[in-house]
Amino acid sequence: MDSKARSKSIVGFSKLNKRGKIKWIVENFFRDPENVMHELMSYWHRNEDQQKVLDGFSENTITNFPMPFSVAPNVVVNGKTYCVPMVIEESSVVAAASSAAKFWMDRGGVRAEVLGTRKLGQVHFNWDGPASMLRAWLPEIERRLRQEAADIVANMEKRGGGIKEIELVTISTFERYYQLRVGFETCDSMGANFINTCLESFAKSLDGFFAGSALVPEHLRSVEVIMSILSNYTPECLVRARVECPVEALGPVGEMSAEEFAWRMNTAVEIAQRDPYRAVTHNKGILNGVDAVVIATGNDFRAVEACCHAFAAKDGQYRGLSTCSINNGIFQFAVELPLALGTIGGLTSLHPMAKRSLELLEQPDAEELMQITAATGLLQNFAAVRSLVTTGIQKGHMKMHLHNILHQLGASEDQKNRADEFFNNRTVSYNAVRDFLAEHPPAE
Amino acid sequence: MDSKARSKSIVGFSKLNKRGKIKWIVENFFRDPENVMHELMSYWHRNEDQQKVLDGFSENTITNFPMPFSVAPNVVVNGKTYCVPMVIEESSVVAAASSAAKFWMDRGGVRAEVLGTRKLGQVHFNWDGPASMLRAWLPEIERRLRQEAADIVANMEKRGGGIKEIELVTISTFERYYQLRVGFETCDSMGANFINTCLESFAKSLDGFFAGSALVPEHLRSVEVIMSILSNYTPECLVRARVECPVEALGPVGEMSAEEFAWRMNTAVEIAQRDPYRAVTHNKGILNGVDAVVIATGNDFRAVEACCHAFAAKDGQYRGLSTCSINNGIFQFAVELPLALGTIGGLTSLHPMAKRSLELLEQPDAEELMQITAATGLLQNFAAVRSLVTTGIQKGHMKMHLHNILHQLGASEDQKNRADEFFNNRTVSYNAVRDFLAEHPPAE
Repeated sequence: MDSKARSKSIVGFSKLNKRGKIKWIVENFFRDPENVMHELMSYWHRNEDQQKVLDGFSENTITNFPMPFSVAPNVVVNGKTYCVPMVIEESSVVAAASSAAKFWMDRGGVRAEVLGTRKLGQVHFNWDGPASMLRAWLPEIERRLRQEAADIVANMEKRGGGIKEIELVTISTFERYYQLRVGFETCDSMGANFINTCLESFAKSLDGFFAGSALVPEHLRSVEVIMSILSNYTPECLVRARVECPVEALGPVGEMSAEEFAWRMNTAVEIAQRDPYRAVTHNKGILNGVDAVVIATGNDFRAVEACCHAFAAKDGQYRGLSTCSINNGIFQFAVELPLALGTIGGLTSLHPMAKRSLELLEQPDAEELMQITAATGLLQNFAAVRSLVTTGIQKGHMKMHLHNILHQLGASEDQKNRADEFFNNRTVSYNAVRDFLAEHPPAE
Repeated sequence: MDSKARSKSIVGFSKLNKRGKIKWIVENFFRDPENVMHELMSYWHRNEDQQKVLDGFSENTITNFPMPFSVAPNVVVNGKTYCVPMVIEESSVVAAASSAAKFWMDRGGVRAEVLGTRKLGQVHFNWDGPASMLRAWLPEIERRLRQEAADIVANMEKRGGGIKEIELVTISTFERYYQLRVGFETCDSMGANFINTCLESFAKSLDGFFAGSALVPEHLRSVEVIMSILSNYTPECLVRARVECPVEALGPVGEMSAEEFAWRMNTAVEIAQRDPYRAVTHNKGILNGVDAVVIATGNDFRAVEACCHAFAAKDGQYRGLSTCSINNGIFQFAVELPLALGTIGGLTSLHPMAKRSLELLEQPDAEELMQITAATGLLQNFAAVRSLVTTGIQKGHMKMHLHNILHQLGASEDQKNRADEFFNNRTVSYNAVRDFLAEHPPAE
């Protein structure tokens, strides 16, 4: 490490108070410390207590990063109309979801159903004995695990959830390795803390079983629990959402007939089923809608992303997560997504805006939130593919992008209008817009 | 649709101004409209122009959703020390990254290298003729495509980027389907707009070729371009990051010897290589670190998520994205991640905090940002697995969770201390903490 590098490192940073942290950062990394400090502080919430709550979600927090909080109205799911909160920084996503919501509101809305809510956890361990022996002991092990976790589980059981099946998993080529895979129902909570606490209890009990049970021969008493942790892969926590209508009810789309539009949609979805390079982008579009709701409601988008994409690869090839069909003149468009969401616990009640999001959705339970979220992903996907197979996405994107840059550069209304015209058939970039504005000063 | 549902729908919502939108929302979905309106507005930035910029990123924007903006200091990558901006709402992530950064700073830091920066786009089309014919025409098609896109490409070429190879792709079981898969270099920009604009030009040129070229027989002049769009799957836009040191230099971890710690880390990583249920969670942890930097720097986390998880499934089984080895007494821990990031264009310069993030990182180019981001993912993963194979993660998580709830409920310092003690061996939940505080009022 050279001396320059050394000056950028620090001991005891986390012990500094927030102002101390900011001071160290602006003085060591910015040319204009005063201004940057002022700017960072300008993003604090004006209510100090409220800001403390926000600061507490993470560590070394120095300010807030504002993400646009938007809504997509007219989202009809199972006959109920929602105004869906969406938090996303990418342009066109909310406009697309809103447009598709309106389109399908007039055609019966989205139908959604929860196919399962099972969550999973794992205790991974190494042991020298054979699987056959473990299998024989499993009922006794399971009895012990459940008994010793009874206190932890009591509250969840009162709410109708708890520990479901406990399975022994082996991997044939992986010597000495065993796994307990455990099913959980966590009702309306995401359940991460509950599941992890159960699993850590299981790990202790497992250790206790091997150390103390009369069933275990002396030379096999040693067990090494490697780790105990929930799995974010929850293929049985699954929701299905679909829209459908007669092909002719799709109406002409621009200059395209309903029939051609339906055929092109169907082909585009089929391509995503067969080509992984397309599937990744296709699914990214679905997740644009899903994540926006997940973030708005205080759920964990990394967990949802990981699970959905692994699910997309479940048969050995990565595929699109939506399907399309045209049968007997009926156009259907659907998604099936593993969404492990909660409406209580975690940030759902701690983040002030997540709380408001759930209120805006009229306090859904976890299953209803799964349906709303899947519906939003479906609508998003429909809008994106519709745009791709008709006008292409650049037209809308470029216009949004242009307006963002014009805002940023403080263009006048008159300049904005002229820029709209000028860039109608030209590529938009920051530099090009800056140059345009320099050459076209505001009208007197 | 029943009448209740109908009253929640609206025509012309996007045409309302921001206050009008908020008014409609609070009056139709909230019990206490005045208060909610006030709360939503309390998250606006105090500078109106600044808020307009933020509002412009999306549509139907009514306020900001604050995400904690944190930093992880002491992140050493290739000998340079960074203070890494991280935007993430999950507790423990930044603390874990910071702790691992410090640990590896004392052991040489992270080594990272970019293995490639190729991005991809696709033109999907249907055509009745045989692949052999298309292949024969490809040089002429390619000439035309490049020529007609020359204006679009000129600027990017000046910066050293542009269009790379153009390949014809077929899918054997998919009749009439063809694809042009195109490689791009986009220098320091994410390049989405550039790539999509090129591809839409290609689509027009392709149409023109079939309609006008003397090579094409009359009965094969009709081509149907289904869509033209970048691919978010960029396995050749790849960065590798690794840490290594002699096993004994890992030092004892708590009561665990360096040897045992190394072995347990290695085993945990091996489990994620073999068990998809573990791999999803393992990779989710890597992405916790990656996404936090991606968001902070104004990049698109959905694109990164989709690509990384599809990459994890590239050999037909979903696997962990990190590897571990112990060879000749040397412990090594590494990740290889496809990260298509930019440091110019998009939100990187439009979002005021993204701009500050890049300044905090001392204005890296795209390759340097790929290295920093991969390093943060690696450190995150190291910290998470270290915690899992030693103390378990619940201890730290529960403490964070407890403190968040105590903040939220306005507990006094004295109550906080007593709660810490009380919940040391108990499960933390909102209700349990609320009950505890009710039973233990603040000291006089």
